[in-house]
Amino acid sequence: MSTTTKNRGETVTPATPAVDTAGVMALLERGRTLATPVLRAAVDRLAPPMDTVAAYHFGWIDAEGNPAEGDGGKAVRPALALLSAEAAGAAPEAGVPGAVAVELVHNFSLLHDDLMDGDEQRRHRDTVWKVHGPAQAILVGDALFALANEILLELGTADAGRATRRLTAATRKLIDGQAQDISYEHRERVTVEECLEMEGNKTGALLACAASIGAVLGGADDHTADTLERYGYHLGLAFQAVDDLLGIWGDPEATGKRTWSDLRQRKKSLPVVAALAAGGPDSERLAQILAADAHKPEEEFADFSEEEFAVRAALIEQSGGRDWTSQEARRQHATAMEALDSVDMPAEIRARFVALADFVVVRER
Amino acid sequence: MSTTTKNRGETVTPATPAVDTAGVMALLERGRTLATPVLRAAVDRLAPPMDTVAAYHFGWIDAEGNPAEGDGGKAVRPALALLSAEAAGAAPEAGVPGAVAVELVHNFSLLHDDLMDGDEQRRHRDTVWKVHGPAQAILVGDALFALANEILLELGTADAGRATRRLTAATRKLIDGQAQDISYEHRERVTVEECLEMEGNKTGALLACAASIGAVLGGADDHTADTLERYGYHLGLAFQAVDDLLGIWGDPEATGKRTWSDLRQRKKSLPVVAALAAGGPDSERLAQILAADAHKPEEEFADFSEEEFAVRAALIEQSGGRDWTSQEARRQHATAMEALDSVDMPAEIRARFVALADFVVVRER
Repeated sequence: MSTTTKNRGETVTPATPAVDTAGVMALLERGRTLATPVLRAAVDRLAPPMDTVAAYHFGWIDAEGNPAEGDGGKAVRPALALLSAEAAGAAPEAGVPGAVAVELVHNFSLLHDDLMDGDEQRRHRDTVWKVHGPAQAILVGDALFALANEILLELGTADAGRATRRLTAATRKLIDGQAQDISYEHRERVTVEECLEMEGNKTGALLACAASIGAVLGGADDHTADTLERYGYHLGLAFQAVDDLLGIWGDPEATGKRTWSDLRQRKKSLPVVAALAAGGPDSERLAQILAADAHKPEEEFADFSEEEFAVRAALIEQSGGRDWTSQEARRQHATAMEALDSVDMPAEIRARFVALADFVVVRER
Repeated sequence: MSTTTKNRGETVTPATPAVDTAGVMALLERGRTLATPVLRAAVDRLAPPMDTVAAYHFGWIDAEGNPAEGDGGKAVRPALALLSAEAAGAAPEAGVPGAVAVELVHNFSLLHDDLMDGDEQRRHRDTVWKVHGPAQAILVGDALFALANEILLELGTADAGRATRRLTAATRKLIDGQAQDISYEHRERVTVEECLEMEGNKTGALLACAASIGAVLGGADDHTADTLERYGYHLGLAFQAVDDLLGIWGDPEATGKRTWSDLRQRKKSLPVVAALAAGGPDSERLAQILAADAHKPEEEFADFSEEEFAVRAALIEQSGGRDWTSQEARRQHATAMEALDSVDMPAEIRARFVALADFVVVRER
């Protein structure tokens, strides 16, 4: 059990993989280049004012409607969808409708979750419900979800039907995960298993879909698609473990979130539940503090000083919650690698899946 | 132009069709009997607490979770979906997944619209967001939408893919209609054409889907499905015209809504926009009053006396808005009948489509 506080941003130890950063950047860039024009054309189909609200959400325009240089996020999902088509022996372009559909579902869930959670900021900007009101956040979320199905189904092929079915299953899990997330906020104790299940639903399911949807559209059989889903699912859990570390110890400059972001929201994230499960004096002290926090009114809690959150973060770390989560990211990464080994694909494509997974566990935003 | 006020509940004149009420009741009952168990099984798939929230919304349990004798609404859509399967020469049962999917989408839109519109009552009960909070209304709405696609796609047939594509198109229109409805509330003037377009999206599109989805699942060709859609679309517009009449002059005992319900919400419904478009002194007086109303704060407006709403209703009627809307219901009914004439189907099935349409324009709730 460590008693010193690590540096901010130092998320995963030990044995950080040597990431092929240039290769990953090229992959992410390819995903954005191929998917974004199709995504924009899809969003343009929305009736006003939904097209404008969606364009704001994606960062293509600012709140006044002027063109903006959007931070569209890391774009791991589109990159995965295109790679997935290649894993099935198809051209990366075959994965584009899948990449766009997954991005639409992801953003549908962001729009609704930000409203449900009362989150006012995303990617360094005010969230849609803050700028355009709750009704537009609901409505445009609904529209993006419908659009995702439309984009796939209008391909009119049997593979598109299979892809839509998988996307629908992933979306249901996404919604289950959000339901669990909300219900856990009101509970004093959440087990590590419950937290992992929630994160598997909220993050794993859609990354699983991204990692397999291109293959499905490229004509892969169900076994290949299932195995790629497994890779994506565990990649998603690794991704989320890192996100949970960044949510407490991340650098605000890099993440675009406030310091101690997840602690401010009283999130039962992995480092917290692992620390509470660890036992020992620090863990018990943390449990007492968080139990008292849970009953504080929102205003009082929001007025806490940096130092008060730092105390909680230190107890989480001293109870081993930070290390456990780092190791969990590594374990999930390893399970994703195992899944990858049981799909037959060109070595070059496999290397890209590996590089993406390596990148996910060492990123700082 | 009539200068006397008609009786409450007397919605459609003249030449009310002689409705085969017993036949229609049997059709609605068959729709409920075949679709409800499948609908309940679908809702049971939702993770807690979403299953409970959905069961409350459907009226199967009360706010405390005790079983309730739900008023599930008229159930026109399930009845149409089963009939539609028969129009394609299939058994009514072939339409059941379509009936359930359409009901799920319809209820997804009710959950979200009630929250966006701030409506506190539906079917004589508090709405979901009032009882379970806004987050649950958003989440369970999302879940029902996803479930609708799941129910169809898990059939795994090409026809199910076609049905899902049509349902998705209808859902997009539903969302467009809600976006128009919201934007019209903030506008001083809405044309009759804009109102009809909005109502076609909000009500016509999903009834169109209900009237064709069973046929699609039963193997009908696109021409048959398109024609049944046209029947359903105009039936939907007739339905909505009657709803707009009931929204102002309906009997609260029958509708479950407050007196002058749509006027209280400052809705730009058909009688209102038709009255404003009519010209003449009553129309101009109405325009002045509604323009002043539009700037009043919500609280002040909600405190209006019955008499103040009655004045507005009388001006709408004296400007011809009530009669025009009654005639519009009849015109849309006639257009629906024309569509029906261009589909080849057994006379007995056709007679049922006719009876349902007749029922829709004479109903009092």
